[in-house]
Amino acid sequence: MSLTHFDQKGDAHMVDVSDKDVTARIAVAEGHIKMSRETFDIIAEGRAKKGDVLSVARLAGIMGAKKTSELIPLCHPLPITKVTVELTLDPDLPGVRVEGTVKTTGQTGVEMEALTAVSTACLTVYDMTKAVDKAMEIGGIRVLLKDGGKSGRYEA
Amino acid sequence: MSLTHFDQKGDAHMVDVSDKDVTARIAVAEGHIKMSRETFDIIAEGRAKKGDVLSVARLAGIMGAKKTSELIPLCHPLPITKVTVELTLDPDLPGVRVEGTVKTTGQTGVEMEALTAVSTACLTVYDMTKAVDKAMEIGGIRVLLKDGGKSGRYEA
Amino acid sequence: MSLTHFDQKGDAHMVDVSDKDVTARIAVAEGHIKMSRETFDIIAEGRAKKGDVLSVARLAGIMGAKKTSELIPLCHPLPITKVTVELTLDPDLPGVRVEGTVKTTGQTGVEMEALTAVSTACLTVYDMTKAVDKAMEIGGIRVLLKDGGKSGRYEA
Amino acid sequence: MSLTHFDQKGDAHMVDVSDKDVTARIAVAEGHIKMSRETFDIIAEGRAKKGDVLSVARLAGIMGAKKTSELIPLCHPLPITKVTVELTLDPDLPGVRVEGTVKTTGQTGVEMEALTAVSTACLTVYDMTKAVDKAMEIGGIRVLLKDGGKSGRYEA
Amino acid sequence: MSLTHFDQKGDAHMVDVSDKDVTARIAVAEGHIKMSRETFDIIAEGRAKKGDVLSVARLAGIMGAKKTSELIPLCHPLPITKVTVELTLDPDLPGVRVEGTVKTTGQTGVEMEALTAVSTACLTVYDMTKAVDKAMEIGGIRVLLKDGGKSGRYEA
Amino acid sequence: MSLTHFDQKGDAHMVDVSDKDVTARIAVAEGHIKMSRETFDIIAEGRAKKGDVLSVARLAGIMGAKKTSELIPLCHPLPITKVTVELTLDPDLPGVRVEGTVKTTGQTGVEMEALTAVSTACLTVYDMTKAVDKAMEIGGIRVLLKDGGKSGRYEA
Repeated sequence: MSLTHFDQKGDAHMVDVSDKDVTARIAVAEGHIKMSRETFDIIAEGRAKKGDVLSVARLAGIMGAKKTSELIPLCHPLPITKVTVELTLDPDLPGVRVEGTVKTTGQTGVEMEALTAVSTACLTVYDMTKAVDKAMEIGGIRVLLKDGGKSGRYEA
Repeated sequence: MSLTHFDQKGDAHMVDVSDKDVTARIAVAEGHIKMSRETFDIIAEGRAKKGDVLSVARLAGIMGAKKTSELIPLCHPLPITKVTVELTLDPDLPGVRVEGTVKTTGQTGVEMEALTAVSTACLTVYDMTKAVDKAMEIGGIRVLLKDGGKSGRYEA
Repeated sequence: MSLTHFDQKGDAHMVDVSDKDVTARIAVAEGHIKMSRETFDIIAEGRAKKGDVLSVARLAGIMGAKKTSELIPLCHPLPITKVTVELTLDPDLPGVRVEGTVKTTGQTGVEMEALTAVSTACLTVYDMTKAVDKAMEIGGIRVLLKDGGKSGRYEA
Repeated sequence: MSLTHFDQKGDAHMVDVSDKDVTARIAVAEGHIKMSRETFDIIAEGRAKKGDVLSVARLAGIMGAKKTSELIPLCHPLPITKVTVELTLDPDLPGVRVEGTVKTTGQTGVEMEALTAVSTACLTVYDMTKAVDKAMEIGGIRVLLKDGGKSGRYEA
Repeated sequence: MSLTHFDQKGDAHMVDVSDKDVTARIAVAEGHIKMSRETFDIIAEGRAKKGDVLSVARLAGIMGAKKTSELIPLCHPLPITKVTVELTLDPDLPGVRVEGTVKTTGQTGVEMEALTAVSTACLTVYDMTKAVDKAMEIGGIRVLLKDGGKSGRYEA
Repeated sequence: MSLTHFDQKGDAHMVDVSDKDVTARIAVAEGHIKMSRETFDIIAEGRAKKGDVLSVARLAGIMGAKKTSELIPLCHPLPITKVTVELTLDPDLPGVRVEGTVKTTGQTGVEMEALTAVSTACLTVYDMTKAVDKAMEIGGIRVLLKDGGKSGRYEA
């Protein structure tokens, strides 16, 4: 079995998707950032009152999805038709859970866009709270769902 | 305790670092991507022969570090003076471990640049192998070291 | 009445346009920059002889239209099919009037692209003449026409 | 009197600032977007409860400031050290007033960054409310204060 | 005969392609970078063992193709569907030959994307070897093939 | 002799310039684009009257210089302090000669910025005249002068 991003000589290339159908495609990814109880409480309090970390991270995630083909070398540029990024405070982590959903009408899938949205949102939470907690850890970033296109539906 | 990225009204802002000293600063971050044994073997084989996933991901990580202030809304643009991204195959994960090091001579730290480098490298590994394995998971993204500047040395 | 850029919880998202038709769309926007009589004369003289402020601003406006989805957080990326930016010296302002026209064949409108083109052109005129006049004022930026798509024709 | 952005032949160039001192510089700009009473009320209500247009526009303004040298052709890239964007609901317009403040420690001023922050914030308010009001108008964009550097203090 | 990128007044604009058909399009471009025999040997040796200049330049070329519409002022943004960049060591130059191929399904051609890919790959070879050879020269950048669209097939 | 852009294992990295002095640096590069006599005449005529290809290409070159560190993977981001791009009609080529000059006050040289400015200006001339001449060829891109920094003065 071989990787599609390399040609027969082993050189990297952007895969030819010219002959793939233009279809409706969707991908959902998730991830989280773990933090200390104290940091969690500061974010939770800000959410209720003022200084909302999650709304900044949500916007960063949405904008990050649009930058995917600039960040990932062999990724195709795509006309994204929808992005949502949900951030939820989870006291059991403790930390923030992130879920990103991206849709397109195009010739290739959008799982990289969904993963990039989640990853950028997590990094933004880190940036905004790093003055109080440097030991936070980002993890669990994976694809939950991918549908549309020839390879069919994938669900984690 | 409050977050520096919000002012007294709770509005987000880019923190004023005008009065901070221009000093040599360094940050190191790490992360990994876990995959199936089969996917691991494909990457390992490509490394030895042709189709080197790790060298593409390394370059993506380096270029990603340069995009940090575009991705993270309240991050300061910085004249980065060094970036290295090391990718190591770890058969025990199985998967790829990533370590990113960033230096600057500036008025604020570079831990976000190091984290973005690691995160972008992991996403690129996912992109290049997703045709054979959609269940890979990115995790363990955290700061190992931060030094330079008034807040002193941090080591994980 | 509620805003489409927020979901039911009040969280910002990029609106789903997946099910909208791919149609020919056009938008026209206008704006101006007012300046002192002396600055106006310098630009007018340059236009006739050398040092053409308006041609630099026109190009900046065209390129600005292509950056719209990077600047406006919830804006969809679009394959723009036409951009024109007209700059006219108006001695009665005195100043420069700008009109931008953008077309696409896509699933959502291009009024933000037209407004961004106009806005960027005005900012560029300011940049090029600020050494002689810091009191210039940009104003009157609005949509003149929007057509194509389900919401129908809008004319100011 | 001639414009600094053109050389003796009348060709545009990026002005040489190599010999200018590295000094602390600040610029403040303002602008506004006028809208119908109904649109104003929707934004005001969202501010109080959910769906906060102003916080999205604030972030867009901050990120826009960082894109200034990409948008304005002859603008120097600068290591921005601070950005704040204040948005205030003004029932008398009715509409939103925007004030942007940018600082740097560099060889040239930041008034273009402040103007771009204000302009981008206004465009974002338009984007987020255009579904209910297409006739909004952006205006009053001007520099309030510029200080630092050889040309001295300017105050509107 | 007149240039399509200017209107009747002589002002630059982005040509209207709204009414052109969406067709499969391809373009191939080539170029090279000449260097000293010593530099050539260093690159050739690295290719065999470690420190592969060509694989870094290939990736830069692919990513450069995606930046074409940001670099070339009047270029339309396009959903690229394929990019390959081939780099070959030519001992007779001595130097590196580069060939770039780009495909799209769109309303306008991709020769600028192919030329930008080749040009960026050559610049990257220069960057990576400039410590040992500053006298390298980039040349022979031209279109070899363009097909698809109304203007028909062009072959050099 | 080995290349500085690779470490001892042969992995690409962005070279550490943290300990290099901040000095005034300059680089000059040149290049040209050759074309048919007919195309040359069209450009020459537009320069005299209207539709000035050279002024668009000049601006593209200046803006291209600012994008260098985004295009060239291992290039350091730099606060450019001056860019000029001169384009001259040369009837003997026939074609356009381009010379780019870039200055910075920083820790590393700007020859890549000068080369990128020249290369982008040549590509833009191609773009603007390709409707009448597809056989144009870009060449002669090389560094004429590099000064400042430890490695001393280089002159071609």
